[in-house]
Amino acid sequence: MLKEMLENVGIKSPLIHNITNYVTVNDCANILLACGASPIMADDLEEVEDITSICCGLNINIGTLNKNTITSMFVAGKKSNELNHPVLLDPVGAGASRLRTDTAKELLEKVKFSVIRGNLSEIKSLALGSGNTRGVDSVEYINEENLDTVIDFAKDFALKNSAITVITSVVDIVTDGKTAYCVYNGDKMMSKITGSGCQLSAMMAAYISANPNDILKAALACVCAMGFCGEIAKKRMADKDGNSSYRNYLIDAVYNLTPDELEKGARYEIR
Amino acid sequence: MLKEMLENVGIKSPLIHNITNYVTVNDCANILLACGASPIMADDLEEVEDITSICCGLNINIGTLNKNTITSMFVAGKKSNELNHPVLLDPVGAGASRLRTDTAKELLEKVKFSVIRGNLSEIKSLALGSGNTRGVDSVEYINEENLDTVIDFAKDFALKNSAITVITSVVDIVTDGKTAYCVYNGDKMMSKITGSGCQLSAMMAAYISANPNDILKAALACVCAMGFCGEIAKKRMADKDGNSSYRNYLIDAVYNLTPDELEKGARYEIR
Amino acid sequence: MLKEMLENVGIKSPLIHNITNYVTVNDCANILLACGASPIMADDLEEVEDITSICCGLNINIGTLNKNTITSMFVAGKKSNELNHPVLLDPVGAGASRLRTDTAKELLEKVKFSVIRGNLSEIKSLALGSGNTRGVDSVEYINEENLDTVIDFAKDFALKNSAITVITSVVDIVTDGKTAYCVYNGDKMMSKITGSGCQLSAMMAAYISANPNDILKAALACVCAMGFCGEIAKKRMADKDGNSSYRNYLIDAVYNLTPDELEKGARYEIR
Repeated sequence: MLKEMLENVGIKSPLIHNITNYVTVNDCANILLACGASPIMADDLEEVEDITSICCGLNINIGTLNKNTITSMFVAGKKSNELNHPVLLDPVGAGASRLRTDTAKELLEKVKFSVIRGNLSEIKSLALGSGNTRGVDSVEYINEENLDTVIDFAKDFALKNSAITVITSVVDIVTDGKTAYCVYNGDKMMSKITGSGCQLSAMMAAYISANPNDILKAALACVCAMGFCGEIAKKRMADKDGNSSYRNYLIDAVYNLTPDELEKGARYEIR
Repeated sequence: MLKEMLENVGIKSPLIHNITNYVTVNDCANILLACGASPIMADDLEEVEDITSICCGLNINIGTLNKNTITSMFVAGKKSNELNHPVLLDPVGAGASRLRTDTAKELLEKVKFSVIRGNLSEIKSLALGSGNTRGVDSVEYINEENLDTVIDFAKDFALKNSAITVITSVVDIVTDGKTAYCVYNGDKMMSKITGSGCQLSAMMAAYISANPNDILKAALACVCAMGFCGEIAKKRMADKDGNSSYRNYLIDAVYNLTPDELEKGARYEIR
Repeated sequence: MLKEMLENVGIKSPLIHNITNYVTVNDCANILLACGASPIMADDLEEVEDITSICCGLNINIGTLNKNTITSMFVAGKKSNELNHPVLLDPVGAGASRLRTDTAKELLEKVKFSVIRGNLSEIKSLALGSGNTRGVDSVEYINEENLDTVIDFAKDFALKNSAITVITSVVDIVTDGKTAYCVYNGDKMMSKITGSGCQLSAMMAAYISANPNDILKAALACVCAMGFCGEIAKKRMADKDGNSSYRNYLIDAVYNLTPDELEKGARYEIR
């Protein structure tokens, strides 16, 4: 079921327009290449419509937003909507500043997103106007105890925003508001590198762009792929290796992941 | 013949001013250090003249251009021209947006470039006003079949712009309009990492700055060096390695490349 | 004595606000995670006060300053001062352009810094209005011969600016104006990667934020930690490794460094 999602990324090699932060942008570009897609980064108002028009999908990440790039996010988002391109929002640090929360909320109002992907604090900030974002890292985790509560919350958020919602944590949730998948792939080392979330979002933009008619499954496949590659990378860790080597191993694992391996390695359930 | 070019980089350790994109900037800085040069990145209008004045050469890369940095490109380019510093243009993504094509063309009009380096789509966009740029990756390749045609095109472009022109693809072309070199070094893994072209341009700015009286040969040496290091990096690839490890191996290879190894490893011919 | 400094970073996991350059920002984020802290990067005027308020400390690095981020540096710095957060200044390239020198000097006037960390050229530019900055790399080194002279200079600079001053070179100096520590840890490979200084500054912001009542010792511990990790990374270098692998090894070493290892590995004296 999931393998076709990755196969289509390889076959179509979607060009993805990224308006993203300057912290993790290089990793986002390399992970897009690793999974078989192509990246382009462009954030100037004068060109974002042109750029997004030649792309298959748009990834908006507010990690180091500023007044210029915020304008570009709206313009690119609307243009992508006109062209019926999948658009993904990664509300990095929503809740950490009024600017981030307000920008993300306004984006949700004015742009139609196919997928919204964040951690629990970020998505709560968008839903409840508050949340407990600690910088760009979540202070709240999803575990077996609060899983049902968070699933209900995620479904509600997905329905209200008409967007597939992906909340990543120890357990990841992927839902369209009706069906909710819980993904158990992943490794805690992923939180020891900067930008594993950004990388997931960039790669997810590729998966959904290559599978525009099956976005829920594409998002699920991508979450499983990232988590499974996080496990592969962890197994590769040797003496003296730390988070910098892990970062390389993670992208390497994405590069080498085959559709069959993804199919077998994915660990998820419908809840 | 080529070894002196690299030797001079090591001896002179040229300081290179880069106005470049935020996607691959870290790799550009590290490859400049790897080859024996020193990088400085500065793009604010208030300082680009000061910075370029203390440097030996200027690398202008339009990868994530914006209205502020575009102005700085013109000002820095003119100042470098006044000082007779070598200036290189990497027209990343020319053809992908009107802003990129127009900016690159206007730069060609108002700044004297020693070298223009791009892929075939980018250079065609500058020459023909159209081209088939697919984001930042070329959709057109140079191979044995179209080689003579592309050489003629490159020579013509070099003469019209009075600049050494470097078009990189499966086969690379380096020409001053009269002599054309075809370089056969390289590996297809280089297209699986972001910024191998940006890195080549940054390093080439160092090679030409260290060899200001022999820019054609310096550009040739740099193309051979990058391609040869791409081959070395490929040979180093082991089980589980992917594009992230390859990126490290490529820069490592540049770090370890000796002038003699370059001389022996270079594969090129005059056509 | 030093081990508690690192232990506190691990225990408190301080969130550090970085207004920094786009060249080395990814490495700064990863080294903060490696040492047990958390990074957030934010530079838009509209959010820097919010962001710095939820953080424990602020790292201002002028590496690719521009007119927008300069304003944010002042606003964030003042807000951090109000909140009594430790603030660190890394005057990258001071002396290389009037903009950098003037901005750094004005920051020293208007913001109270806990620590100022730079190379000798940069600190001299701030003290003497001139200096011999060669881009972002120092042209002047601290060695046994000029050590006493530089210590006197550093003490004087520390007293005049009421800030702990850290000058890094072959020998590193850490002083509050009264006591001066000379650190002998380190490896020359650290100058072959971009941003080892930026990384040190980011990590130092974490050390001083986790040890707000012992900033001198925290700064000393961080300099020793970075230098010692530079030595560990060097020992790990194998055939074919170059500066790119070294960069990974350095961050890996920070990730794996234990308080006890730091205590044993630190090589410093009071002069």
